[in-house]
This record gives sequence, structure tokens and C-alpha cells, in this order.
Amino acid sequence: MHFSSFEQVRVRNPLVHCITNYVAAHFTANGLLAVGASPIMSAEISEMADMATLCDALLINIGTLEQHTIAAMLAAGKAANAHGIPVVLDPVGVAATSLRRDTVARLLKEVKFAAIRGNAAEIGFIAGAASQGRGVDAGQEVGNSAQLAAEVARKYDCIVAVSGQTDYISDGLRTFAVKNHTPLFPKITASGCLLGGIIAAFLAVARANSNFEAVTEACAFYAWAGEVAAQGLDSRQSGTFGIRLIDSLAMAEVNHWEIQARIEAV
Amino acid sequence: MHFSSFEQVRVRNPLVHCITNYVAAHFTANGLLAVGASPIMSAEISEMADMATLCDALLINIGTLEQHTIAAMLAAGKAANAHGIPVVLDPVGVAATSLRRDTVARLLKEVKFAAIRGNAAEIGFIAGAASQGRGVDAGQEVGNSAQLAAEVARKYDCIVAVSGQTDYISDGLRTFAVKNHTPLFPKITASGCLLGGIIAAFLAVARANSNFEAVTEACAFYAWAGEVAAQGLDSRQSGTFGIRLIDSLAMAEVNHWEIQARIEAV
Amino acid sequence: MHFSSFEQVRVRNPLVHCITNYVAAHFTANGLLAVGASPIMSAEISEMADMATLCDALLINIGTLEQHTIAAMLAAGKAANAHGIPVVLDPVGVAATSLRRDTVARLLKEVKFAAIRGNAAEIGFIAGAASQGRGVDAGQEVGNSAQLAAEVARKYDCIVAVSGQTDYISDGLRTFAVKNHTPLFPKITASGCLLGGIIAAFLAVARANSNFEAVTEACAFYAWAGEVAAQGLDSRQSGTFGIRLIDSLAMAEVNHWEIQARIEAV
Repeated sequence: MHFSSFEQVRVRNPLVHCITNYVAAHFTANGLLAVGASPIMSAEISEMADMATLCDALLINIGTLEQHTIAAMLAAGKAANAHGIPVVLDPVGVAATSLRRDTVARLLKEVKFAAIRGNAAEIGFIAGAASQGRGVDAGQEVGNSAQLAAEVARKYDCIVAVSGQTDYISDGLRTFAVKNHTPLFPKITASGCLLGGIIAAFLAVARANSNFEAVTEACAFYAWAGEVAAQGLDSRQSGTFGIRLIDSLAMAEVNHWEIQARIEAV
Repeated sequence: MHFSSFEQVRVRNPLVHCITNYVAAHFTANGLLAVGASPIMSAEISEMADMATLCDALLINIGTLEQHTIAAMLAAGKAANAHGIPVVLDPVGVAATSLRRDTVARLLKEVKFAAIRGNAAEIGFIAGAASQGRGVDAGQEVGNSAQLAAEVARKYDCIVAVSGQTDYISDGLRTFAVKNHTPLFPKITASGCLLGGIIAAFLAVARANSNFEAVTEACAFYAWAGEVAAQGLDSRQSGTFGIRLIDSLAMAEVNHWEIQARIEAV
Repeated sequence: MHFSSFEQVRVRNPLVHCITNYVAAHFTANGLLAVGASPIMSAEISEMADMATLCDALLINIGTLEQHTIAAMLAAGKAANAHGIPVVLDPVGVAATSLRRDTVARLLKEVKFAAIRGNAAEIGFIAGAASQGRGVDAGQEVGNSAQLAAEVARKYDCIVAVSGQTDYISDGLRTFAVKNHTPLFPKITASGCLLGGIIAAFLAVARANSNFEAVTEACAFYAWAGEVAAQGLDSRQSGTFGIRLIDSLAMAEVNHWEIQARIEAV
């Protein structure tokens, strides 16, 4: 597997339109800048068409839905599809409420996603499995994450990344496991949300027919950066970890991190 | 006074629905995760009923009101009441505008709160005293905070916590003073907002008829964590303090912090 | 040039009403507290009139526009004008979408601004130059920033600050260059947004007819604080820089920073 997205992000600075929750917005913006991308945040429907002409990728994260942002998500997704820019879905807490379930169902019906990123409960819910997720955080991994990733990838003809202690990334035919991790990831809010943004940035610069490689690279790169950020920290020191994660993303060197990536075919 | 809420939060990981301002949302989410609770943020009225069935407590913080979030607050509060989960009110800057005054009046009329947390100006305003608060930050303590806490506790039949250099917590009959503090608390935004969330988490796991103990424990625990976070810092070093406060909450050990708690009956 | 605004902010703690984007809100609030001002955030139109009676300055930042916040910006701006409190405009990404262009045009027509702060692409767009800005971040400096600042200052009869490697501040007749800088500024989100808030705080306490001095002081003080924050850091270490910038603003001593300010007439 040849990785080139991180290098290309650093060279091309893709502009990533983020429709994301207000909890994660600041952290996501700083993380995208750290990686080398440029974030622009907006959930106002009247500028969605303009965004699709300007931007190189779109992230739709449903963490804090409002009626008017749902309409903006649909409009933005369709405009991005029309302009051929990749769209990433982060179905935060999809199983929690009927509003989230209905919104994700409608998004999956009306928008073509290049990738979906979620934790096992979220992807499991989309796969049709009974959800065991209560809230928006990761909780325990449920079922067989690798299989869930592959199922959802086939169902929606896209790349699916299931985040957890091990990440699983599938295009429906092939599935990779990323073994890099730190237990500090689930102890900060928005660590998954930021990964959704980074996936969008990596897809923005992916070569034709290499979305699977780009999403795998994004997950492995991000998990590696978390490991670096956690070095020397107490495994509960989440405040400091959040700051160091931004440092680690920003200080990563192209062609350096891959040596420590632990990626295995499933 | 026997304290068990922090221990129970660590064991049971209560899910806390936060309707809070967008300034405090990220910090509140990280602080709740650090304590051992799970945050879920939403102010969209159409998922308030679902939230009440899922969650273990509700925080209503009026820091950045919007017309549609006011309706959501009322709906969420009533749904929480119907499901018997505790509701905490944080009346941020209540005296500042007629919208805030009217919203708090309506919330207090239509929703039964388990606890109200504010600074002296905010609780003083609710007590009917002429407000001396200009904005949303703490300013000087006005009047007799212990008395204000007891008055408002009796008036609304709930626990009231007045935050300041000394915190006062009252159930209307008994009042405790928490003497732990650091002058860095008022130098960061959202330090009071996060305490409101932690109070909600502690109430979520409180034994029957021990709300007074749970709120007192939350205030003392949080103030102690602030003291730990401030150790070795310049008393103006607010950036670093905010990060260390999250670390300190996350690294706190059950049965360790109580030794340093300074709680006195008033 | 005699500087007194920072000293006065520390003494008088001006209350700054911020209508700002949800990405920058938390960082802006902490930065204003660090400087010695008090932030209050609201974009709800029904409390705009009250805010103008309470507050000492108003910041309007268009980073995440929504239909209802646009109406609030116009109402707040007019109320602030009626009460004689200074209003600062931060036209984030103005060239990016027709919504942003139209909103800024309408704000500039209906509200009298004391100051406008933006990067070269944003101020260049307002000057009528063809925009070369793609997103909301700084990018390369375009054209002659000093000249753009002066043009826009004359056009709207206000002080204009163009942020960049060198900041240019103009009242239309005189222009100053601030040479203090760190390359870490454009690597964190909201560094420009916070400067807009600090300009508002400094204007709130400015003596009559010294808005030019106050805005120049704000830019030089902020750039100096960034240099201090960056000392000893890797030039990519953006996570840590954001935290240290708050520390640096909070620990700044009146009459100390000016020695290191590098301000030159253009």
C-alpha cells in the first residue's frame, strides 16, 4: 500500500468545508491546520453552493444537529456531489435519537459519501445491528468491527472506518486493521470528529481510485500521532494530551511516521 | 457528611445531557469525560424527549440563549422531570438582559430543578436582590452568599450552590462553605459552566435524599482539583491552568481528595 | 505615540459584547479575560438592545454566519452606534461566498465601525481589489497591505488593521507597521479573531480621538505577546502555542511590553 495523501496535504493545503458540531469545531480547525489543510466552517444553507465551488472536500458531522443545519447538510452534500468533491459522514451518536437516525438515513439516501467514519456502535447501527451505544462516546467495541466496516462499505459503496482500540478500514472487499492507538483518544472529546476532518483532507488530495488507501493512511497517521502525543504522559492526562496531539500532528514529518505504522490486512 | 458521588461517577459513567452555551461546550465535554461521566450536547427541541429516556441528568446553562434553544430548554426540563432525572440550572448572566431574566423566570416556573449553580450576582438576582453583576463573569461577591444560597434553596425547594472564593451550598436548612479555591478559577472562561455539568453528573448517581451531599461534594471536589491544577503555576497563568484542570480532574483518585477538602458548616 | 489602552483595560475591565463564530468563541473569551477585559457572547437579536446599554464595546465577526445572527449583527451594530460604544468588524473570509460579501456590504452601509481588522485578502476585497483569498486563513499577503489599509480607512472613515507577517494600521492619513510577529500565529485557528476582540477592548477605554493609537497598541501588544509565547517552541508547535499565548497575554506587565514593540511609520 502506497501512501501519498499526507505529503500531498502538506503540499496542496486542501480547503475542507466542515459542517460539524459546536463542541468539536475549535479542536477540528486546529487539527486540520496542524495537518496542513485549511478548515472553513459553515452550516448556513445559503452559502452551501458557494462552498462546493471553493472547497476540496466536505465533512458532515451530526454531533449537534439543528433543524436548519440538517437542511444545510443535505444541500452541501448534494452540491459537493455535483462538483465531484469527496464527502465524509461522521454519524455521531446516530443510535441515540430518532432525529439522528432519520437524518443519517436521509443523508445516506440523498448524498453519495466517499467515506463514513464512526465508532463500532455507530457503524453497527448503520449496518442494521441492534445498537449498544448509549451516547456519543466510544464505549466498548461491539460485534465484529471488521465485518461491520465491510458490510457498510458494500451497502453504501464507500470506504468505512471504524475507530476503536484497533481501527478497521474497509472498501467492502479488502479490510485493514490499524493497530496504532493510545487509551487517551477516547478520554478527550472530539478526537473522532477531528479524524473525520483529516479523512476529508486526505481524500481531497487522493489520486483516482485510491480512496481506500487515503482513508487507511488518515487513520494510521492519526493513530500514530496520538501515540507520539501520549509518550511520557500518564494515561489519564487528557488535558495535556489534547494539546500535544495538535503539536504531534503539526510536527509530523512526511516519510517518517510510516515506519511506525502498524497496519495489517484482516 | 458521607461522600460517594465521585466514586459512583467513576463506576457508573452517567450520561449527562448538556444544553449549554457554545463558548463552554468543548471545555465542559472534556471536563465531564475527565471526571468519568459521558457528555451529550444537544439543544434541538425534536430530540429532547429521546434525551430524557437515555440520559442520567440534564444541565441547562443559559450562557448563549437563542429563541429555539429556549424552547428546547423548556421541553428538555419537562421531559427530564417526567422521567425523574435531576436537572441543574446555571443562570449565566441572568441579570444582564430581559431575555435572560424572562427565560430564567419561566424555567423556574415550569421546570423543577434539583440544583441551581451560579455566582453571587446571579443567585442574588434570583433571590430578588438588586443585581450588581454587569456581565457573565464572577466579579466581587455581593451581600451574604450563604444567606442568598439558603433563600433561593427554600424558594425553589432545591439545592443552591453559590460559587466564589468560598463556595456556599445550601438546601435551605443547612449551609456548607467550601474553602478550597484558586484565584485562577475566575480567570478562565467556563470554569463555572463546567462545575454545573459536574454537579449534574454527581446528582445523577446520588443516593435517594442525598442531593445536598452530592452538590457539596461536587463543589468541594472541583475546587480541590483547581487547587491541584494551580500548584506551581503563576497565579495569572490561565492558559496552562485550563489544561491542567482537566488533567487534575482526570487524575483524581477516589478517597484521596477528601483529605484536603475544607468544608465547614455555616 | 503614547499608549495607555492596555493599562486602562487592566484598570477598568471593559465588558466586550462579542458576536463571533462558534469556532473562535472559547479562545476569544479566554484571551479577553487574559488581557483584563470581560467577554459576553450573544447573537440573539432580542437581547442586542440590552447589550448596548451594558457593554463598553462590540465585536462583529462573520466567521460562521447564520440568517438569524446576521439580523442580530445589524441590530447590535445600530444599538452600539446609538449608545456611542465602539464597534469592530472582522470580515472573516468575506470574499468566499456571496452571503459573506452581501453581509459585509450591508454591515458597512448600516453600521458605523470604529475599526476593521482582517488579513490582506479580506481587506483587499473590501478595498475593491480582486480577492485572492480562498478560505478563512491568512494565506500569502497580497498587494500592498499598507496601501489597502489606508484606502479602506478613508473609504469607511475608521481605523483599519491588516494582520500578517507585518501588521499595518491606518487611519487613512497615517499608517504604522508593526514588525513583531511569530510564524505560529497563522498556524492556530482564531488568532485573528481574538485580535479583533482585543482591539474592541482597547477601543473601549481609548481617550477621545485616539482610536488610531488604541488599535496600533492592540496590534503591537498582541504581536509581542505572540513572540513571548513562541519563545523556546518549535515553530510548528501550534497546540502548545495557543495555550502559551493565553498565558502570555495574562502575564504581560503594563509598561514592560512597549520596550520590545517594533512599530514604524510607513
